[in-house]
Amino acid sequence: MSKSSWKDECGVFGIWNDPEASRLTYLGLYALQHRGQESAGIVTLEGRRETGSHTHYKGLGLVHDVFSEEVLDTLKGDVAIGHVRYSTTGSNLLTNAQPLTARLRRSQVAIAHNGNIVNAHVLREKLIQEGAIFQGTNDTEVLLHMLARRGHKKFMEALQESVELLEGAFSLVFLTHKKLIAVRDPQGFRPLVLGKRKSESGQWSTVLASETCAFDLIGAKFIREIEPGEIFWVDDEGEHSIRMNVSKKSAKCVFEHVYFSRPDSVVFGRSVYNVRKNFGRVLARESQVDADVVIPVPDSGVPAALGFSEESKIPFDMGIIRNHYVGRTFIEPKQSIRSFGVKIKLNPQSEVLRGKRVVVVDDSLVRGTTSKKIIQLIRQAGATEVHMKIAAPPTVSPCFYGVDTPKKSELIANAMTKADICEFIGANSLEYLSEKGLYESVQGSEDEFCAACFNKNYPTELYGLAKD
Amino acid sequence: MSKSSWKDECGVFGIWNDPEASRLTYLGLYALQHRGQESAGIVTLEGRRETGSHTHYKGLGLVHDVFSEEVLDTLKGDVAIGHVRYSTTGSNLLTNAQPLTARLRRSQVAIAHNGNIVNAHVLREKLIQEGAIFQGTNDTEVLLHMLARRGHKKFMEALQESVELLEGAFSLVFLTHKKLIAVRDPQGFRPLVLGKRKSESGQWSTVLASETCAFDLIGAKFIREIEPGEIFWVDDEGEHSIRMNVSKKSAKCVFEHVYFSRPDSVVFGRSVYNVRKNFGRVLARESQVDADVVIPVPDSGVPAALGFSEESKIPFDMGIIRNHYVGRTFIEPKQSIRSFGVKIKLNPQSEVLRGKRVVVVDDSLVRGTTSKKIIQLIRQAGATEVHMKIAAPPTVSPCFYGVDTPKKSELIANAMTKADICEFIGANSLEYLSEKGLYESVQGSEDEFCAACFNKNYPTELYGLAKD
Amino acid sequence: MSKSSWKDECGVFGIWNDPEASRLTYLGLYALQHRGQESAGIVTLEGRRETGSHTHYKGLGLVHDVFSEEVLDTLKGDVAIGHVRYSTTGSNLLTNAQPLTARLRRSQVAIAHNGNIVNAHVLREKLIQEGAIFQGTNDTEVLLHMLARRGHKKFMEALQESVELLEGAFSLVFLTHKKLIAVRDPQGFRPLVLGKRKSESGQWSTVLASETCAFDLIGAKFIREIEPGEIFWVDDEGEHSIRMNVSKKSAKCVFEHVYFSRPDSVVFGRSVYNVRKNFGRVLARESQVDADVVIPVPDSGVPAALGFSEESKIPFDMGIIRNHYVGRTFIEPKQSIRSFGVKIKLNPQSEVLRGKRVVVVDDSLVRGTTSKKIIQLIRQAGATEVHMKIAAPPTVSPCFYGVDTPKKSELIANAMTKADICEFIGANSLEYLSEKGLYESVQGSEDEFCAACFNKNYPTELYGLAKD
Amino acid sequence: MSKSSWKDECGVFGIWNDPEASRLTYLGLYALQHRGQESAGIVTLEGRRETGSHTHYKGLGLVHDVFSEEVLDTLKGDVAIGHVRYSTTGSNLLTNAQPLTARLRRSQVAIAHNGNIVNAHVLREKLIQEGAIFQGTNDTEVLLHMLARRGHKKFMEALQESVELLEGAFSLVFLTHKKLIAVRDPQGFRPLVLGKRKSESGQWSTVLASETCAFDLIGAKFIREIEPGEIFWVDDEGEHSIRMNVSKKSAKCVFEHVYFSRPDSVVFGRSVYNVRKNFGRVLARESQVDADVVIPVPDSGVPAALGFSEESKIPFDMGIIRNHYVGRTFIEPKQSIRSFGVKIKLNPQSEVLRGKRVVVVDDSLVRGTTSKKIIQLIRQAGATEVHMKIAAPPTVSPCFYGVDTPKKSELIANAMTKADICEFIGANSLEYLSEKGLYESVQGSEDEFCAACFNKNYPTELYGLAKD
Repeated sequence: MSKSSWKDECGVFGIWNDPEASRLTYLGLYALQHRGQESAGIVTLEGRRETGSHTHYKGLGLVHDVFSEEVLDTLKGDVAIGHVRYSTTGSNLLTNAQPLTARLRRSQVAIAHNGNIVNAHVLREKLIQEGAIFQGTNDTEVLLHMLARRGHKKFMEALQESVELLEGAFSLVFLTHKKLIAVRDPQGFRPLVLGKRKSESGQWSTVLASETCAFDLIGAKFIREIEPGEIFWVDDEGEHSIRMNVSKKSAKCVFEHVYFSRPDSVVFGRSVYNVRKNFGRVLARESQVDADVVIPVPDSGVPAALGFSEESKIPFDMGIIRNHYVGRTFIEPKQSIRSFGVKIKLNPQSEVLRGKRVVVVDDSLVRGTTSKKIIQLIRQAGATEVHMKIAAPPTVSPCFYGVDTPKKSELIANAMTKADICEFIGANSLEYLSEKGLYESVQGSEDEFCAACFNKNYPTELYGLAKD
Repeated sequence: MSKSSWKDECGVFGIWNDPEASRLTYLGLYALQHRGQESAGIVTLEGRRETGSHTHYKGLGLVHDVFSEEVLDTLKGDVAIGHVRYSTTGSNLLTNAQPLTARLRRSQVAIAHNGNIVNAHVLREKLIQEGAIFQGTNDTEVLLHMLARRGHKKFMEALQESVELLEGAFSLVFLTHKKLIAVRDPQGFRPLVLGKRKSESGQWSTVLASETCAFDLIGAKFIREIEPGEIFWVDDEGEHSIRMNVSKKSAKCVFEHVYFSRPDSVVFGRSVYNVRKNFGRVLARESQVDADVVIPVPDSGVPAALGFSEESKIPFDMGIIRNHYVGRTFIEPKQSIRSFGVKIKLNPQSEVLRGKRVVVVDDSLVRGTTSKKIIQLIRQAGATEVHMKIAAPPTVSPCFYGVDTPKKSELIANAMTKADICEFIGANSLEYLSEKGLYESVQGSEDEFCAACFNKNYPTELYGLAKD
Repeated sequence: MSKSSWKDECGVFGIWNDPEASRLTYLGLYALQHRGQESAGIVTLEGRRETGSHTHYKGLGLVHDVFSEEVLDTLKGDVAIGHVRYSTTGSNLLTNAQPLTARLRRSQVAIAHNGNIVNAHVLREKLIQEGAIFQGTNDTEVLLHMLARRGHKKFMEALQESVELLEGAFSLVFLTHKKLIAVRDPQGFRPLVLGKRKSESGQWSTVLASETCAFDLIGAKFIREIEPGEIFWVDDEGEHSIRMNVSKKSAKCVFEHVYFSRPDSVVFGRSVYNVRKNFGRVLARESQVDADVVIPVPDSGVPAALGFSEESKIPFDMGIIRNHYVGRTFIEPKQSIRSFGVKIKLNPQSEVLRGKRVVVVDDSLVRGTTSKKIIQLIRQAGATEVHMKIAAPPTVSPCFYGVDTPKKSELIANAMTKADICEFIGANSLEYLSEKGLYESVQGSEDEFCAACFNKNYPTELYGLAKD
Repeated sequence: MSKSSWKDECGVFGIWNDPEASRLTYLGLYALQHRGQESAGIVTLEGRRETGSHTHYKGLGLVHDVFSEEVLDTLKGDVAIGHVRYSTTGSNLLTNAQPLTARLRRSQVAIAHNGNIVNAHVLREKLIQEGAIFQGTNDTEVLLHMLARRGHKKFMEALQESVELLEGAFSLVFLTHKKLIAVRDPQGFRPLVLGKRKSESGQWSTVLASETCAFDLIGAKFIREIEPGEIFWVDDEGEHSIRMNVSKKSAKCVFEHVYFSRPDSVVFGRSVYNVRKNFGRVLARESQVDADVVIPVPDSGVPAALGFSEESKIPFDMGIIRNHYVGRTFIEPKQSIRSFGVKIKLNPQSEVLRGKRVVVVDDSLVRGTTSKKIIQLIRQAGATEVHMKIAAPPTVSPCFYGVDTPKKSELIANAMTKADICEFIGANSLEYLSEKGLYESVQGSEDEFCAACFNKNYPTELYGLAKD
């Protein structure tokens, strides 16, 4: 990944009916860590058969820093939900960490949300006018207040009524004092999967997660996706599913396949790894080049580079070594060192690159500044030619569905022609995957996916968000 | 790397004549982090032309956790040395963190050491009998006392006398109030390289490091190795070099190429990445197999797997995805999850492995338990055959030269035949690189390298260390 | 103070129109630390003349632990309010720390509260039924929601309407984006004082505080009390004052003089130190005794003991030395040490007590267990007689007006006769101040003061709080 | 105490033969906290009857911050020594925290030291010349090396030989693997007392402490002082005592009675509280004054003020209230507040002082700046006259025997006449206790006590320390 700015979003997890609910949720979040590194939280439900009560713990930082054995031991109960967050709306404060919790008129409720509700500020303003008090700045709190305002109704009725008023992306997991609930927006922006797990003692539990890699870690079996527009829940009577009375265009996020999801997950019914190899294969067919070696920008560019090599028959090699000990921050020298910010992570190897015509494959290209530095380093290592291959179309527009993206004006593909970008980054050639190639790789179509970041076709009203 | 127990050792760094000495040392240690994650320390020398004085800072943890901007700003001066440590002798206490410092009769001195002095306990006992007081338990403190006992002599004379009495592995960097010194033991166990760096303002500095990857990060140029038996120093008069009056068999550690060093370093004059690809190529020639895909155990097995694929023409693929968000510790569920400890790091992919005859390449095999779990996971992911290829000979004996290894009795190759190991790990076949193939790959011979972990030919007396 | 259980309550502070508002609030809270040690918080208002905005910081612990220079520097603006808290209702969580803040329809608001609203749970339940979401468990949050529900009205109108619905004790300080407001309940339970301060540069500011000792520290001049039932505010137009449309019996807390307030404060128009000396003087007249020395239980018993000595002509001495290095917690030995818990704080001196008939003066007597231990220690130190004099009447009933008191059943004066208590604590005699003497000392009457803890005459309905 | 600069020194504690040795040492240090607040440490001895081994724990901060239940539980064994430190020589680094420990040729040893060895730098330089390596900068480490150099001798022989070479103040407690040892320098500068304690289970233990207040807390009985020049030890054979072969002038520190020791301790055979009252009584006789009230500077001036009041018949009152919530640091406002630094601790009361002629009694006067501020505040509170009475002679010379004092040039009595000081501090009159009155109060003579800070008669050579 050659950019610092198309950031991950959030990950959610839920489990029903396992005495180790909090530990399994911890592990589920561990596997979903790539979806959010700012905060992590778990809420458990103890005594669901009687008057259940919630215990919760949230903290800023990585899952393994936030939770200790002691903390997990206090999170009692056999039902739990969890959340990892990368701040989308709302700044990085603990008050915005999720799951959010509240005591409603008839129930306790905890919510974990992946996505972004595009009409949240409209709903929020209305609620404030009606006298609601907001603690944080994130969009999910709006839903909490909508539920509270319907506290006189049955919870599932209030829930359905509320979520039908939301616009945008929401893969939600709820915990009440009796139920574990999953809701996915009618357009299906973000993934949400359902699984089953059998414990050592033979007890079956129901599990929910943003990605299947969480199931792999805890030894759960993937059953199916939660469908767009589905409201699914499990309680002591068993599993239930209904649909929202809303019909909207399908808009699965294609960027989940491009970058967000872990390569070992199955997302929207497709292996992410395979799709990424396809990106490389199709890209090789679309933009042939005469070269000696294909190298990835590690780690995210590896599958596409392997696909490119396979299709083009140009040998694959690890021309850039990634340093995995890089922390979240590092201290720069005062005098500039050339391409320093990139070098601390990525070290090109002369042994592989010297005298070679090099194809470099990266997953996407956002601002161009990192690619420019990488290419400089590759040339310093002795490459005679550098051909940049981007395994996605040009990114031309921000995302408003739960991803932290740069402003439109900061996206290089929006400001320059391909030729100018090629010159800017210092490559001998630059080629992107076509939008057609994108759909071909993912074995889908524009009707199924949201690719607004590539084509500006936003599948919802934007409620004034797209000012920039 | 399929083992938890052939641990890295230490890394050293030094720089003379750059106003940003402490920051460059920080960066050098950052690049050497893979050589030691237990503690990090820096000592700087301010005012070398007059009565120089030392400032030092050490802490437990990773380089980027130990040092902050504020700390680096207190480390004034244009000369510095640094150290990252993985405890070899001495437990994990801050008193054992390096560089060690002391005020001697005529000079201050700071020492950073990579290696292990095999006769340290003999020298130590003698010093205690003579009234020396030891603070920590590590072998390097012995050298400090040997220098102190020779405080009436000139420092370089005392130094030469002292290091000539040491047996074993020592790549040392010293800082006095006037000099930056490098010493490499006569057998050359551990690497130590010399470089030059030109700052933005055109000032040249002399740099020392365990590996060349540290030079790459700071933009320094690799000049040459510090030779076995060499005592090199730089002071206001310039650079100097003398030789110890000791002649011993060359014994460069071949395991630096097998596992310790970073693939993007040049060690003992050879590219580590290329040597590792050679391991794979030679292994492919030595042990042919009919298979559908070659996969590495990431990340350390990648170069050898690429070499194996190149030579065998069997396609390379990333059949196992590594999770890089794994912290140093994680909390296990109370009920066992099968192969859990491995799964948290490594997730095999059905999409790549299902229905395939799989060659798995790993850098070495120590206890066998991790390999067993990996193979289980690969089979669960649908592989029909699993052929294990180890890019090194069987490890049969512990290391006493600065590496934290399991006891002899814990090394599986010491206790079982290859056939039994193959059965134990559940592979269809198991092949190691031959010792001959090892030397061929590294383009050297038994005369140049220490391969005692593979062949039990220890190049020094062991002073009773090898009891187990 | 010989008890651990009639705990302090809260302290509030406010300042309008000083560029160092946050630092002066910090100092004001420092002076009010005795009123609450669990948490501390400050909210400042920046840019009051335009659209003012709040900055706030709260933490668990003492004022000097919660705030640093860096934190105070972020609290910009020339208006501020602050709060120190000892949990009365609501457990010790940061969510209950004050000032509480919210964004209302037309204004931001921050509240700092000393007291306890006895009908809070009734109001709270109603608000939850209406869909309000509560974050913490403290009674003040109710007021925030009452204001939010009236967001369509002018703020001062909504405020007056809301506070007129509250029952119980409330000395409140509010900060909106335009005003600093003080409200004192119509019965005047808790103190709240108004002052003026002239800065070095000659600028006058308006200050509010729970006690005058806060004014002394920052060099402000005490002007007057905020009157019971008064709503006072200051904004860019100047100072304003109105009265609530509520008429209730005066009920100033006499225990502020007995124990809560600092001796150097002027509370309800009287010097606390003088009142406490009066307690001792009157007590000496009421309960004469033949003795050799009068000693206080330090520090709270000192003024009354001086008064007792003055009136009785029995010499005053420091027979018990207090250790001021005692932390909030200490580790007890496993084997019991006699009277250990008291000894860690208080050490009686043989030199003063040996062979003497001793009068011990304490401010109040709650459970009796501490007094028992103190008397044991005094006897061990050689006293021949110990006469216990309590500078207040027997405490027979809990407080519901903002003080953390033991349950009724735990109050020894409720369960035993004076003679039995005297035997229980091991004194030769035990005398309390009479209720008449209490009013005489404080120069007031039952009509002005609440002395419910001494006489069970609660000046409000209790809304089911007094179950125990 | 009206000064910030005649700082406390250190406190030591030891216990032999109680299964709760570490907890009792913790409590002993708790009681000695006033003698040192920079660091605290405990070393225990487990298994003394066989090959005993030491466990130790040290930290920066107050006793109750450094030690937790968990830490104390790791300090196993029935013998322990402990130390609280206020840095005298050596900066505030953990490496200087005590007890110091080392493994010698025949024994482990731990040392806790109160005092200062005036020839330490001479001895230290000699040891460095001989090749010794020093870790910290404090004088006690010298003794450790002296013992190590005599490692071939029997420990008690080496010890006697070593301590006989020391000059200055040393009350020492040692722990070897077999013995608990106490040593007091031949001049007896610092106190060191011996006690006995009977546990609940009837087991007797031997205890050592700097002051008797430590015995009071743990319920131990004071037996006697360790005599000047005595070497006392207890081992499995019982208690032993020998004398050093050194004869020197008695030089007990009179400042222990003036300020250092806790008032409830018995030091050098005298009650500190009584001696301080004597200071006040004698001072009243020496410097009569016509006044209305006697007030102390709390807390240290209280006993002398009581004595002054008793003798002069002028009524005693608490005219200044001390705020005990003052932390080690506080944040000052940027604009100066008059006498701010004093006001945060001490608040004079108008109610007591208005219209009065006031006698203020303080324990000593060092720089004069604090006294000046206190007198300003007393005048602001309405006093018509302020007469300053100092319960000690003028301090004219620094201490080199374990006390952190200002330089000679900073001592006001060294630079000004009494009349000038009186004018500087703004008093109507200023009187000190005479040196004769000092000895009278303490019931001793110049032959017994060191009063060098008052009379410049240093009882040892100073080895160049007194340069300032």
